Amino acid sequence: MTYCVAMRLDTGLLFASDSRTNAGVDHIATFRKMHVFEQPGKRLIVLLSAGNLATTQSVVSLLRQRLDDDAVNLYNVATLYDAAALVGNTVKEVVARYASEGTLGQGVDFGANFIVGGQIRGETTRLFQVYPQGNFIETCEDTPYFQIGESKYGKPIIDRVVRSDTSLPEAAKCTLISFDSTIRSNLSVGLPIDMLLYGADTFAPAAPHRIDGDDPYFNKLRRGWGEGLRRVFAKLPDADWFE
Amino acid sequence: MTYCVAMRLDTGLLFASDSRTNAGVDHIATFRKMHVFEQPGKRLIVLLSAGNLATTQSVVSLLRQRLDDDAVNLYNVATLYDAAALVGNTVKEVVARYASEGTLGQGVDFGANFIVGGQIRGETTRLFQVYPQGNFIETCEDTPYFQIGESKYGKPIIDRVVRSDTSLPEAAKCTLISFDSTIRSNLSVGLPIDMLLYGADTFAPAAPHRIDGDDPYFNKLRRGWGEGLRRVFAKLPDADWFE
Repeated sequence: MTYCVAMRLDTGLLFASDSRTNAGVDHIATFRKMHVFEQPGKRLIVLLSAGNLATTQSVVSLLRQRLDDDAVNLYNVATLYDAAALVGNTVKEVVARYASEGTLGQGVDFGANFIVGGQIRGETTRLFQVYPQGNFIETCEDTPYFQIGESKYGKPIIDRVVRSDTSLPEAAKCTLISFDSTIRSNLSVGLPIDMLLYGADTFAPAAPHRIDGDDPYFNKLRRGWGEGLRRVFAKLPDADWFE
Repeated sequence: MTYCVAMRLDTGLLFASDSRTNAGVDHIATFRKMHVFEQPGKRLIVLLSAGNLATTQSVVSLLRQRLDDDAVNLYNVATLYDAAALVGNTVKEVVARYASEGTLGQGVDFGANFIVGGQIRGETTRLFQVYPQGNFIETCEDTPYFQIGESKYGKPIIDRVVRSDTSLPEAAKCTLISFDSTIRSNLSVGLPIDMLLYGADTFAPAAPHRIDGDDPYFNKLRRGWGEGLRRVFAKLPDADWFE
């Protein structure tokens, strides 16, 4: 499985992805699920992927090898909306190819989910979630984040903390706690985590940060969060209706 | 959907269930998912149910109307193991009846999950999870709890807090926090919560406690937990690798 989160905040965008893939429990590997398309000063488009690895890799490879084409590609689409549509169409193209080759069925789910976000000069930052069917939705002020993959374990802390006006460093902190909860409860999500923070309107070179098991900040956070939770828990009263 | 939790601790058993059922989002109702079979002084058997409501209700009705039969029933099985097997066989019986009547298929999942726990005089407390196929597993010291239904949102807090030697009141506190996280993030789980705490070897009459939206303890807990989390979160440092 996979766990990816992206947030569109007033001051910028956050992207985070784990890097564990598995085909069954005995075939586990590490693959990057964050894919950056950037032209510093002009545009940044970040893709996060979940689902069938052959499908997501095909989609990203096709998107990348077409960057020099004259046809529509991620470096010449006019808006992030068009970028999301292009990703959706490429997902459909790959799955249609499987269908025509007789690859579909066989009890395998060939579907893929993507999060597509970034900023193209002339637009504000935007963030989309692309479904396996190729259609997509965009964040709004009430719901400024998307998750794909194993989203449930880490959702409560995001629901409690993140609003549109949350700062990027706070959002990063919340996201790492969300990953910690997920990794503790689900074997199919694993380190390292890739995290990219983008300040709105900066068009600066995007530098994903890789967080591994020996990352001092992540370890301080996990320890502090775990101890803090237990402290809060211990201070809360027991029910008076029991004995 | 549904959310049920049960724990087998050194000092006793905990059972908790929400009470929301839905067939689509526009047909929501409240049904008790905790079913108590007891002979004070002799035996206590508690069932928690998740899945297709017609199936779970049929299973519980059949188990109850057979209590006076001479055949095997929940009041005459010799062990909790036999009780779990009886529940599993009754699930299979109901689903087999659907199959013979041509009810199966039609895009509906007729499956049901049960948690079966309690104590029969002569045995220690025991706790089982029964799958839709009728087979079942029992807790052990390393994994003293089972969840059925929407289990993921509320799993991290249980994984952090509950061990076999956790006290019943602490386990109750943790379980209610787990329900709070689930209810906040998932519409298909809702109040009231039924909770039953049983002290090992007491064979006392079982008194489920019903927790509704105006329960003072539950509200104090949700408020204290939410505020405590935000306090711990605010005190944790921001990443030094961001600006």
